[in-house]
Amino acid sequence: MLRRDREMTVEVRERMRGGRGTVSIRHLEERLPPMCRLFAELTLKPGCSIGEHEHTHETELFTFISGAGTVTDDGLSMAVKAGDTTSTPSGHSHSVANTGKDDLVIIAAIIKDPPSAD
Amino acid sequence: MLRRDREMTVEVRERMRGGRGTVSIRHLEERLPPMCRLFAELTLKPGCSIGEHEHTHETELFTFISGAGTVTDDGLSMAVKAGDTTSTPSGHSHSVANTGKDDLVIIAAIIKDPPSAD
Repeated sequence: MLRRDREMTVEVRERMRGGRGTVSIRHLEERLPPMCRLFAELTLKPGCSIGEHEHTHETELFTFISGAGTVTDDGLSMAVKAGDTTSTPSGHSHSVANTGKDDLVIIAAIIKDPPSAD
Repeated sequence: MLRRDREMTVEVRERMRGGRGTVSIRHLEERLPPMCRLFAELTLKPGCSIGEHEHTHETELFTFISGAGTVTDDGLSMAVKAGDTTSTPSGHSHSVANTGKDDLVIIAAIIKDPPSAD
């Protein structure tokens, strides 16, 4: 199945997870695989951020396509730029902020954990 | 967990799935979530391709970051460019070729199907 850029839904979130400004979420695929909760391109304008939040029973992968920013990983702050990737498994928290002059563009995938045996 | 561009493994595959030339696979995350088999940046130089192949018990998502090419989706050929996304669920087949003048860069994620009840 092919989805064209122009067919995709763009969601605009204000103060996402308590962050600053707005985040555009371009949903790359609407019929997601059962174990995938999100596959999207996130765009943060300069000065915008997604506040710190924890993931449970899933892992979020971010790969940075363009721009520069800072992330926190369980509270530890680090600079990131295009080419870097972060992984936030269940029980861990993260945030991301655009600290550069250009848009910060991220491909984000959230993969659900397998059903637990307990 | 943060992984820097320079820390990532780049795998070079010749004639991948029967395609032409070489494909560079930059593995964005080595400690993948349990239900994710691949999270990688694929780079196809002009004229290079990945041959047609079927996925079983998993879905492959491609989002095209830059360049232009053609994909097949169950044998049907379509032009693609940056901004487009394809989804290839279990039981379906695809291929991809760089038909442009620039590198074709793709973020690829393979998500495993949940354990079957049967």
